[in-house]
Amino acid sequence: MREPLGPGREFDLIREFVRNAPSNDALLVGPGDDCAVFQGGFVLSSDASVEGVHFRRDWLSAEEIGYRAAAAALSDLAAMAAQPIAILTSFALPQTDYGEFALQVMAGGQRAASAAGAAHAGGDTTATTGPVVIDVVVFGKAEQPVLRSNARVGDHVYVTGELGGAAAAVSDWASGSTPSADARRRYAIPEPRIREALWLSERIELHAMIDLSDGLASDAAHLAAASRTALSLRMAQLPVHPAAAERVHLALAGGDDYELCFTAEPDAVEGVALEFYERFGITITDIGDVTEGSGVRILNEAGVVLESPPHGWDHFGGNA
Amino acid sequence: MREPLGPGREFDLIREFVRNAPSNDALLVGPGDDCAVFQGGFVLSSDASVEGVHFRRDWLSAEEIGYRAAAAALSDLAAMAAQPIAILTSFALPQTDYGEFALQVMAGGQRAASAAGAAHAGGDTTATTGPVVIDVVVFGKAEQPVLRSNARVGDHVYVTGELGGAAAAVSDWASGSTPSADARRRYAIPEPRIREALWLSERIELHAMIDLSDGLASDAAHLAAASRTALSLRMAQLPVHPAAAERVHLALAGGDDYELCFTAEPDAVEGVALEFYERFGITITDIGDVTEGSGVRILNEAGVVLESPPHGWDHFGGNA
Repeated sequence: MREPLGPGREFDLIREFVRNAPSNDALLVGPGDDCAVFQGGFVLSSDASVEGVHFRRDWLSAEEIGYRAAAAALSDLAAMAAQPIAILTSFALPQTDYGEFALQVMAGGQRAASAAGAAHAGGDTTATTGPVVIDVVVFGKAEQPVLRSNARVGDHVYVTGELGGAAAAVSDWASGSTPSADARRRYAIPEPRIREALWLSERIELHAMIDLSDGLASDAAHLAAASRTALSLRMAQLPVHPAAAERVHLALAGGDDYELCFTAEPDAVEGVALEFYERFGITITDIGDVTEGSGVRILNEAGVVLESPPHGWDHFGGNA
Repeated sequence: MREPLGPGREFDLIREFVRNAPSNDALLVGPGDDCAVFQGGFVLSSDASVEGVHFRRDWLSAEEIGYRAAAAALSDLAAMAAQPIAILTSFALPQTDYGEFALQVMAGGQRAASAAGAAHAGGDTTATTGPVVIDVVVFGKAEQPVLRSNARVGDHVYVTGELGGAAAAVSDWASGSTPSADARRRYAIPEPRIREALWLSERIELHAMIDLSDGLASDAAHLAAASRTALSLRMAQLPVHPAAAERVHLALAGGDDYELCFTAEPDAVEGVALEFYERFGITITDIGDVTEGSGVRILNEAGVVLESPPHGWDHFGGNA
């Protein structure tokens, strides 16, 4: 039995869910990757955002709430190097929010879809007595879907952009201070790396890829588990967002960055990194190695394994 | 601007959502039908169920809650005459329910998927501080998707099976009595008419079709609006479920039947109705006509238009 997910209470539950999941010939890659993959290269994923767990109204505008929910879902298409086709949005909201709030949230989601070239193809709208829940379904197509499960021993591990900015904003809010505009933007208006992933997949062989939603430590553990390899990550190499400069653990354990983490042969990546930077304005950083074994090891600057690597982002303290 | 939905506060909101929805060449039929339709005949829909709005734990077992949520979503594939490929399930639930309850709900959903030949291809699981929300995404493929929008003047209007049984069960519970086993089953274990729809679509030309989730009066209004026609329905012709025999309004305004309502030429339907009954054990009933105009008219036994036809099912009083 495949064991595609890293540690965590929620992932234990998901492991149970998929144990007896029905399958069929059309489904090529089932639960456990960023998207399900179907015959023809079609990919599907859903991503739910819950008020009070993934977002708060006093931190984000309604339009940002909708944008962020859709961008987070679209990031799963980026993780497969898939071209977006459409999103669907299921929306459970209190009836008192049926007016301007709902319209602004939906406008934000449509802005994210539009930026990614995706249609807004429908969804469902229903009343709830509880917090707002936004479930965004993403549908896309990939010539060669990049899975989590094909990391190879000897690959290097790479991330795009900078890590920890979104978590710095959340940490600031949680402690009563005001995040920097840039950190706030990293949390409120994440940019799914769709064009970046497509560009890379057309130029080099991406062996394995995942998007960073729960935090590098947690997401790298999923990739390691799916590939039946270990990942060694060098703490000192992490591209830390300036807002997290004094809190580098946020680059490792903080979530919501929506950058890409992938493994590939180092020669291939070195050949395109500069052009990538010139084109997209973000870096590709070599942060470690794929090795024999299992799990994620975090190495300090002396190359010593840090005990008990911090686990993934739990949003606002829940196991979300 | 297309006006694909009937009256209702929730549909007013959805109309606003779709006004500026981005589209692209891959999307052939966008919001407003039972599913979105994409190039290649692929169809997608999502359907959210909320605790306290669509189901209650004191009425259904956990397994039934999951089955029912998936069956309701799969019914949207039936409404397009589509072959199911897969479901995805997004699941927001209190952390106290992470154990047996969650596993039973998911097992129920998988049972519904399996019965329909659909894979369970993934989804999302997250904590919530509010009621359980289950959003089921259905993915399928149709050779000739049957839309809501092609009803033609002169068509007759048909429904499969019997109406009002599920609403009778809910009505009984709401008034403190115990529903009959058969009525309870109609609510708890609805049977999406997938095979029935495929069988019909292979034999006759189905002009327009919708599944009955919100209630015949409301759903027929959607079909009429999408087709820019009127529907005249004869109250005396409705195939009323025995549990609703003394409450025939439930056959018109009660929801959750998940039967099919379609329009076609009467000669075509008469030619296959008996074989349909012999094969599936349910009837096809001629309940009215497609005429010029707009909206739904309900005719009493004397052929007189009843004023103020009852509106669609609002579940437990919410505009769900």
